[in-house]
Amino acid sequence: MPTLPSWNDTAAKQAITAFVTRVTTEGGADYVPPNERIAVFDNDGTLWCEMPVPVQAFFADDRLRALAPQHPEWLTTEPFRSKLANDMKGVMASGMKGITELMAATHAGMTTVEFIEIVRHWLATAKHPKLGRPYTELAYQPMLELLAYLRTSGFTTFIVSVGGVEFMRVFAEEVYGVPPHQVIGSTIKTHFEMQGDTPVLVRDPALDFFDDKAGKPVSINKYIGRRPIACFGNSDGDREMLMWTTLGRADGRPAFGLIVHHTDAEREFAYDRQHVLSGQLDKGLDEAPLYGWVLVDMKNDWKTVFAEP
Amino acid sequence: MPTLPSWNDTAAKQAITAFVTRVTTEGGADYVPPNERIAVFDNDGTLWCEMPVPVQAFFADDRLRALAPQHPEWLTTEPFRSKLANDMKGVMASGMKGITELMAATHAGMTTVEFIEIVRHWLATAKHPKLGRPYTELAYQPMLELLAYLRTSGFTTFIVSVGGVEFMRVFAEEVYGVPPHQVIGSTIKTHFEMQGDTPVLVRDPALDFFDDKAGKPVSINKYIGRRPIACFGNSDGDREMLMWTTLGRADGRPAFGLIVHHTDAEREFAYDRQHVLSGQLDKGLDEAPLYGWVLVDMKNDWKTVFAEP
Repeated sequence: MPTLPSWNDTAAKQAITAFVTRVTTEGGADYVPPNERIAVFDNDGTLWCEMPVPVQAFFADDRLRALAPQHPEWLTTEPFRSKLANDMKGVMASGMKGITELMAATHAGMTTVEFIEIVRHWLATAKHPKLGRPYTELAYQPMLELLAYLRTSGFTTFIVSVGGVEFMRVFAEEVYGVPPHQVIGSTIKTHFEMQGDTPVLVRDPALDFFDDKAGKPVSINKYIGRRPIACFGNSDGDREMLMWTTLGRADGRPAFGLIVHHTDAEREFAYDRQHVLSGQLDKGLDEAPLYGWVLVDMKNDWKTVFAEP
Repeated sequence: MPTLPSWNDTAAKQAITAFVTRVTTEGGADYVPPNERIAVFDNDGTLWCEMPVPVQAFFADDRLRALAPQHPEWLTTEPFRSKLANDMKGVMASGMKGITELMAATHAGMTTVEFIEIVRHWLATAKHPKLGRPYTELAYQPMLELLAYLRTSGFTTFIVSVGGVEFMRVFAEEVYGVPPHQVIGSTIKTHFEMQGDTPVLVRDPALDFFDDKAGKPVSINKYIGRRPIACFGNSDGDREMLMWTTLGRADGRPAFGLIVHHTDAEREFAYDRQHVLSGQLDKGLDEAPLYGWVLVDMKNDWKTVFAEP
């Protein structure tokens, strides 16, 4: 099996394999021992499709509709009224407070075990509105190969995403080969209690940590406790973790940064600087050449985007 | 090499090896696949000595004295005045607010990289006041063997401690063989900033999460995302994580709980129900037989406590 078969033999692929060769060549000046070979990946737009909205937003939407019959008051209460009417302007008008209420209504109030079952059932039945396939089939084949290639090369691979950690963990091991304890994301508060003789963790309607932008280096430090030597993202939400990985390293370790640039309107979606709900890539396009981050041109660098059904 | 050579062949050792055999025997009714073989260990009093006070309290004390010359105001300000005068009653009188101020003064205000260097230097030079050895030599030899035995049996081993995560990570990989991303503990807040061209994380004087008692199942869920099948503790601070591991499992997985009971005043320290600064074991002594948790009698179950210098 050749290395990274779904990648064309362009500069992006060559940069990846050159870096991996450098850090894994024993006796070489840039050799990095396996326990320091930490690679971090954003999820939405980096490992799987995030358009037209991130997958978890589809989940929240479906969940809200499923719960709506038990909540007649939502028909007259914001932000629920606007959300159920697909009025995104109305939702946005309710601001962070409204978003938080939607999140609480759809993601809290159950045990962690119950939440996992809800997500599992949804993933097994829901399909992407445009691409017509289950979301878990919309992982990028070249990135799955990259994850596997890095692990074969002694890397430990982590996901560091703004997505909810308990949402991602339901599929990350099966789809990405990344076990739950290597998935980092946004968290809501939980508390422990005994329900009779059974201990449970209940998901509370309050944000614990929002894992985006400057929050990503914070969570990398908190969960991993070691600076990554390779970082893969696709948007300005990944900017600070790219900086944390690649800039001003006093430890002298070589480091690698890569941005997936969505240039393929035909096989997936094309977007970058324009304001989008998730995945805006503006500063990153300017900074990539400056900081030596590799820009992947999906259209030209990838032979395949999604695996065949 | 025999299994667990520093353990006497008593009921405790037999219970450990019987459990590991059960969950690793392919085709057996209680077989657990490797990715679910999660074992969690408390640190202070479970993996290393916590008497007369936890090691990190010695660190905080030394650090306070090192900084005192730059803070003449501490001589007249509580809780600093009491702490520098070794007046624990005075410190306690300042309550949680005082403890937090001491923690902030000794553990915050520097970058994460600087903090690691401070801890590393301290560990290399400080010695236990009674036992006269570097703290990192005061890991329990039988527990080091147990960590290694579980890993050899396909377990992933985690530390889940009230101790500061960035304090423990300095030595956990070398001493316990537990990499930084498998060390979970209390955290203080940090923030990301650019200092010129260099990205840093600064440790802020504010608690992020206190990882004790009912906080332990919460952090296990947040960091590991999977229920452990084996849990090792020594005090009532570990009670909820023992419950979370062993009680009322809907997944039907077998589970194992163990409490290290400090019964050896000669080779280490003897303490349990009495009020102590760290490591009180009161409820756990009553609940162990009720819930099937194995009680390790250090004096009779361990051949050796500490490795020879």
